[in-house]
Amino acid sequence: MDYENFFRTELEGLHREGRYRVFADLERHAGHFPRATYHGAQGPRDVTVWCSNDYLGMGQHPDVLAAMHGALDGCGAGAGGTRNIAGTNHHHVLLERELADLHGKESALLFNSGYMSNWASLSTLASRLPGCVVLTDALNHASMIEGIRHSRAEKHVFAHNDPEDLRRKLKAIDPGRPKLIAFESVYSMDGDIAPIAAFCDIADEFGAMTYIDEVHAVGLYGPRGGGVSEREGLSHRLTVIEGTLAKGFGIMGGYIAASAATCDFIRSFASGFIFSTSLPPALAAGALASIRHLKRSQAERQGQQDRVAALRARLDTVGIPHLPNPSHIVPVMVGDAVLCKRISDELLERFDVYVQPINYPTVPRGTERLRITPSPMHSDADIDHLVGALTAIWAQVGLKRAA
Amino acid sequence: MDYENFFRTELEGLHREGRYRVFADLERHAGHFPRATYHGAQGPRDVTVWCSNDYLGMGQHPDVLAAMHGALDGCGAGAGGTRNIAGTNHHHVLLERELADLHGKESALLFNSGYMSNWASLSTLASRLPGCVVLTDALNHASMIEGIRHSRAEKHVFAHNDPEDLRRKLKAIDPGRPKLIAFESVYSMDGDIAPIAAFCDIADEFGAMTYIDEVHAVGLYGPRGGGVSEREGLSHRLTVIEGTLAKGFGIMGGYIAASAATCDFIRSFASGFIFSTSLPPALAAGALASIRHLKRSQAERQGQQDRVAALRARLDTVGIPHLPNPSHIVPVMVGDAVLCKRISDELLERFDVYVQPINYPTVPRGTERLRITPSPMHSDADIDHLVGALTAIWAQVGLKRAA
Repeated sequence: MDYENFFRTELEGLHREGRYRVFADLERHAGHFPRATYHGAQGPRDVTVWCSNDYLGMGQHPDVLAAMHGALDGCGAGAGGTRNIAGTNHHHVLLERELADLHGKESALLFNSGYMSNWASLSTLASRLPGCVVLTDALNHASMIEGIRHSRAEKHVFAHNDPEDLRRKLKAIDPGRPKLIAFESVYSMDGDIAPIAAFCDIADEFGAMTYIDEVHAVGLYGPRGGGVSEREGLSHRLTVIEGTLAKGFGIMGGYIAASAATCDFIRSFASGFIFSTSLPPALAAGALASIRHLKRSQAERQGQQDRVAALRARLDTVGIPHLPNPSHIVPVMVGDAVLCKRISDELLERFDVYVQPINYPTVPRGTERLRITPSPMHSDADIDHLVGALTAIWAQVGLKRAA
Repeated sequence: MDYENFFRTELEGLHREGRYRVFADLERHAGHFPRATYHGAQGPRDVTVWCSNDYLGMGQHPDVLAAMHGALDGCGAGAGGTRNIAGTNHHHVLLERELADLHGKESALLFNSGYMSNWASLSTLASRLPGCVVLTDALNHASMIEGIRHSRAEKHVFAHNDPEDLRRKLKAIDPGRPKLIAFESVYSMDGDIAPIAAFCDIADEFGAMTYIDEVHAVGLYGPRGGGVSEREGLSHRLTVIEGTLAKGFGIMGGYIAASAATCDFIRSFASGFIFSTSLPPALAAGALASIRHLKRSQAERQGQQDRVAALRARLDTVGIPHLPNPSHIVPVMVGDAVLCKRISDELLERFDVYVQPINYPTVPRGTERLRITPSPMHSDADIDHLVGALTAIWAQVGLKRAA
């Protein structure tokens, strides 16, 4: 077996399909978001980032940076171990309390990433609850799919955001078995939002646990940034609320919030939690500052919603087609991997605008898109520039305008 | 199904077995390692940490902290996205180059943790190489076991550090199938070291890839901190070298170093890499500074080896039994979960010494231990105090002394 040759052949396949990923080498500038230096082949130059998931710009917030500098000076660079072996820092303890409060739960548990929180929590619950059946939304994130797959529990996929299909699937399952319904609030790529109350009603009817991924919602929705479940007054009806510190809160890391027994169970049995070095104290301190700020301040959420509405209105004016949805995500649909990459390249090379093409496997083939995420820091001039660039490229490549 | 009741019952089982984990709430103090504030039930007080995996104290190194402060001010708190979507920061690019150089490989690839680097890399290789058979050491880390399990590839467990058993297992496998041999260099809990050259010889003989986990060795062994494989001049013979930024380098994150095609393949197909927000720029900058320092400086490695030898000599003098091994890990064997926890509690409560008990599932039942990790910062007085405390407790609980 020629391993090198096998790897190269597989990579050539990605090139042929137009979905080989080239990472844009960037340096964001704290205090000047959404501006960044792009380190391209022709040397560094300034660009405007239009696809970051630091949705509210909390990564440059002075309170966040001050807290991180402080913890770095106080406690050093890393935590120094797993949570169980010398790696629990007082900032982790405070952050878990804050997260529990944010979601109105008894407890919270930190992970190194949102991916790990989903993978470890779902695989632990589904594998350790004897005879557990998982009901999973058809468009759930890769981390949820892989966690469920890892559990080897029986799994039923229900139609995306479809309570009736969920009910049909549940009806066919032995009422005595443990059941876990897993879904997201805001779906990252289409920006649509789950019918959470309907799912909770059905969960009650069939005695199922509910697990919601709120990673694209925490910080952004709800009067204190507790996500869509907070906005809709449903936090108490969800068994597990999973979130991230990397998007709305601007740092890195994932978590779950749930009852004390649920968190303690996952804490005690999840291999991916037990055997990972914990988050650096500075990250925990920064996240704590970010959450506390967004619990009080509405300015970031309002600013974002305002910029989202402004961009959509301008796209409608010029007829650039985008997927309507009730969230902050603006998907501009292209539908072809090679063309999507080409438009992204043109935006970067000719207009100093950075929007990454989104291709398979992140979205299904044929739905390739530019996923635009307006933030409170994008000015009217930024919006005009982006829309002007898209208009010029649309004409150039001959893509259809909306009516 | 009463889920809460099920979780509580399972947790009670852990309590009964004496292996319920209580996390010590700590605040290390940069500039004063190994000292930390312990936030206990009776309020905060100072303790000496004897079980950290920040083996060399790089988490308080001035170069590391300066680099992190600089990147925090320059680039902000988080990376703002996955590596593919707005989250590649120039510091990641520089760090991956540095890691490739450290191990004499063409490329390197960063992950959010060592756990994720093992899980994602092994599961991707073993599931995507058609018909792959994995040969895995019996004492491999949980992250490797779970990655191999996730791949669903055929797996053969060979006896720990036993080349002859590996050869026997390989002989029985169809020569045409891809084969992956996975092992560690330094085993974390016993501190023994793999016969790397013998494994490489066998891999060559049977046309297998080799995958080595060097997380407990990078920074600590080899003239530039490239691990045991560097020390033994074997880096070029290993297909994949996996390491961590969290232990010897003092921060957080994991990585692999390998050929360009191997790294690009895993970069392109590993779900856990693709769908995770990347490391904050400050962590990458800190790791870069740490690696560069340890490439030049021998003081930390020599200081650690000196402290390890000094502790072992003192333990021998008083007859506290410890597992002999050729590494920096000093396992003081207890062999009972409840007693191990009790000794750890006594050390903390009566002597202000923090050493976490290591129980199942981290080590097999019956081999419960105190795992002591001397660092360059532990003074002779610290060693005297620890050995005095152990001697007093050994007499009190009636444990046997060594001859």
